[in-house]
Amino acid sequence: MDIFDDIVKPTLMLDEATARLNVARMVDKARRQGIRFRPHFKTHQSAAIGEWFRDEGVAFITVSSVDMAAYFANHGWDDITIAFPANLRQMDELSDLADRVRLGLLVESVESVAALHRGLNGSAAAWIKIDVGSGRTGIPWDQPAAVAEVLEVIRQASNLEPCGLLTHAGHTYHAASRPEIEQIYATTRQRLQCLRAVVETQDLASPPPARDTSVVQTQNSGSLQISVGDTPACSVVDDLSGVDEIRPGNFIFYDAEQYLLGSCAWKDVAVAVACPVAALHPDRQDVVIYGGAIHLSKDFMAYEGHPAYGLAALPEGNRWGDPIEGAYVRSLSQEHGIVQVPQPAFDKIRVGDLLFIIPAHSCLTVTALGRYRTLTGEIIPTMNVV
Amino acid sequence: MDIFDDIVKPTLMLDEATARLNVARMVDKARRQGIRFRPHFKTHQSAAIGEWFRDEGVAFITVSSVDMAAYFANHGWDDITIAFPANLRQMDELSDLADRVRLGLLVESVESVAALHRGLNGSAAAWIKIDVGSGRTGIPWDQPAAVAEVLEVIRQASNLEPCGLLTHAGHTYHAASRPEIEQIYATTRQRLQCLRAVVETQDLASPPPARDTSVVQTQNSGSLQISVGDTPACSVVDDLSGVDEIRPGNFIFYDAEQYLLGSCAWKDVAVAVACPVAALHPDRQDVVIYGGAIHLSKDFMAYEGHPAYGLAALPEGNRWGDPIEGAYVRSLSQEHGIVQVPQPAFDKIRVGDLLFIIPAHSCLTVTALGRYRTLTGEIIPTMNVV
Repeated sequence: MDIFDDIVKPTLMLDEATARLNVARMVDKARRQGIRFRPHFKTHQSAAIGEWFRDEGVAFITVSSVDMAAYFANHGWDDITIAFPANLRQMDELSDLADRVRLGLLVESVESVAALHRGLNGSAAAWIKIDVGSGRTGIPWDQPAAVAEVLEVIRQASNLEPCGLLTHAGHTYHAASRPEIEQIYATTRQRLQCLRAVVETQDLASPPPARDTSVVQTQNSGSLQISVGDTPACSVVDDLSGVDEIRPGNFIFYDAEQYLLGSCAWKDVAVAVACPVAALHPDRQDVVIYGGAIHLSKDFMAYEGHPAYGLAALPEGNRWGDPIEGAYVRSLSQEHGIVQVPQPAFDKIRVGDLLFIIPAHSCLTVTALGRYRTLTGEIIPTMNVV
Repeated sequence: MDIFDDIVKPTLMLDEATARLNVARMVDKARRQGIRFRPHFKTHQSAAIGEWFRDEGVAFITVSSVDMAAYFANHGWDDITIAFPANLRQMDELSDLADRVRLGLLVESVESVAALHRGLNGSAAAWIKIDVGSGRTGIPWDQPAAVAEVLEVIRQASNLEPCGLLTHAGHTYHAASRPEIEQIYATTRQRLQCLRAVVETQDLASPPPARDTSVVQTQNSGSLQISVGDTPACSVVDDLSGVDEIRPGNFIFYDAEQYLLGSCAWKDVAVAVACPVAALHPDRQDVVIYGGAIHLSKDFMAYEGHPAYGLAALPEGNRWGDPIEGAYVRSLSQEHGIVQVPQPAFDKIRVGDLLFIIPAHSCLTVTALGRYRTLTGEIIPTMNVV
């Protein structure tokens, strides 16, 4: 019997061995460089997969929501940074977390700090969110006075411990090449170091507090730490030194976008969605799959000048094979995916077969599908399913 | 106390009265024109909301997956069309459904029909999926020989009853104006009528089978029925006659795309996502919300020349107000939304407030969020949550 025979609908396949290797490689890289590793768990969102990190000695984690922090706290993680501006409407939940774990929060305004000072029962580590150029959120790196002002109110808040400067250089995802990723990383580090130097010079009156960076000691001797983290830079840049902490997430699975970007090799991609073939259109070499926006998400990347929601592969042994040359998911509606598959691969596909889609963005696909099936058939849930 | 005070994270708000009005209006339109109404339940995906249709006398429904058919069959619906090419890998589930309900299936190849003939226990109504120009899937409308061939094998299959021609003219979603929607509807109807005439002329040897169109009798006296259904056309076109069945879905809630398209007025939009404000950037008039791709989906529409994932409104009474002029969701990552909000509205917003986002595409947002909260605070689940 084919090990895929009982797959009847879009199913998120996970190659555990590859994912574990990706984790081990990044742990090793951070350890060799003496940088604290605080992986982002928003990619896998699974307590069971969290254990694969624990097996490698990881003790600090990053999450993207208060609910996700509570989920992992319930599974034994006790040092958690929520890498999203502190949600003031969840003050009760934040207070509960502050009571149970060493909680890291992101702030970027005097108002947020004041609200946390007033409303948060228990203490938290406060990171100032800096925008180094991605344009999403955070205080722009070239506004040291605004950063110093926020730092000052953090220091005045008895329940907040000033931690440092944190950024997500998400613009590496739009880089065109590895040298460009390296350049963005170098610029990010330089901007944060420069900002720290200016803020600390303005701030000589306040002596640096003692810090415990635990397990992995960091090289930086300043009072403010620097935390960065995006998968492209953490994967591609050899010398990450000059920062205190990295927080990549996507690297555990990678995806089609990271593969095209050069963050990983094809063999490093650890997830694919197995999709039943629903119809064939030989005249236009389109394969219609049961696998749409609600399974893959509508995130896309550029592929040979087209927007593409994923790449495609045929089954091979108990896994998916190499990418089908020229094949990509060109359109998605709610349940349908339209995959352009050039010949000769097109001719090998029949209605009722499975086609494997390597999604453009694995984090969103994981959220959409909610559970994994390993190559040996084990089902692994995420926090989104019961 | 503000009725929104206990909303702490992205929450799908539903105005039940508006949704019920939208349902009643479409039921009435179909009834007046003598067209069978088979609404698509993929938009709301909720047994409780299904009852609002039942309250209006609706007895036939459309769904987009085998699982959705099973869910609604478990909630008392007994005449269900799965408007997706029959998934041959779910033959056991299809057989179970065929045993319990009057099941409609879509086919578009001789191979699919043959597989259903061989594998399906129990009988089903078979619709031939036709592509009238949307380019997604189905036999192109101008290939009557291919249609006749599929029809012939359906007739030979003892467990399949030939029903007619079914299409989804999804290209109305990309229309630029109401007249263009009307034009697409007229063309769709004409192409299907023409196709039917050609196929039936070629097919005089086979007498038309007796048909029971139940409750609403249709005007068409041919042997093959015509089923169409897209919200823009069903909302905008006054005279829908000449078809046997309509299957719109989105109209129950509408969304920002339908509003911009002219399918509905702003007051007809029945859903919005209440999102906590996480940060403010007055220099660029950006509001950062807790509400990202995993809540809203990454579907977008065109708004003033930009891709937009939704429109924005401020709270007003127990509902959301008019659209903020010039405001739109310009960027989404996993949990963050970046909303461009021009002054003077920008100045009214504080970190910790709620901003209401009317999503670009309500069907995907419903799937992502999984449950509704009505304006009176009632929680209504969908099939995606327990």
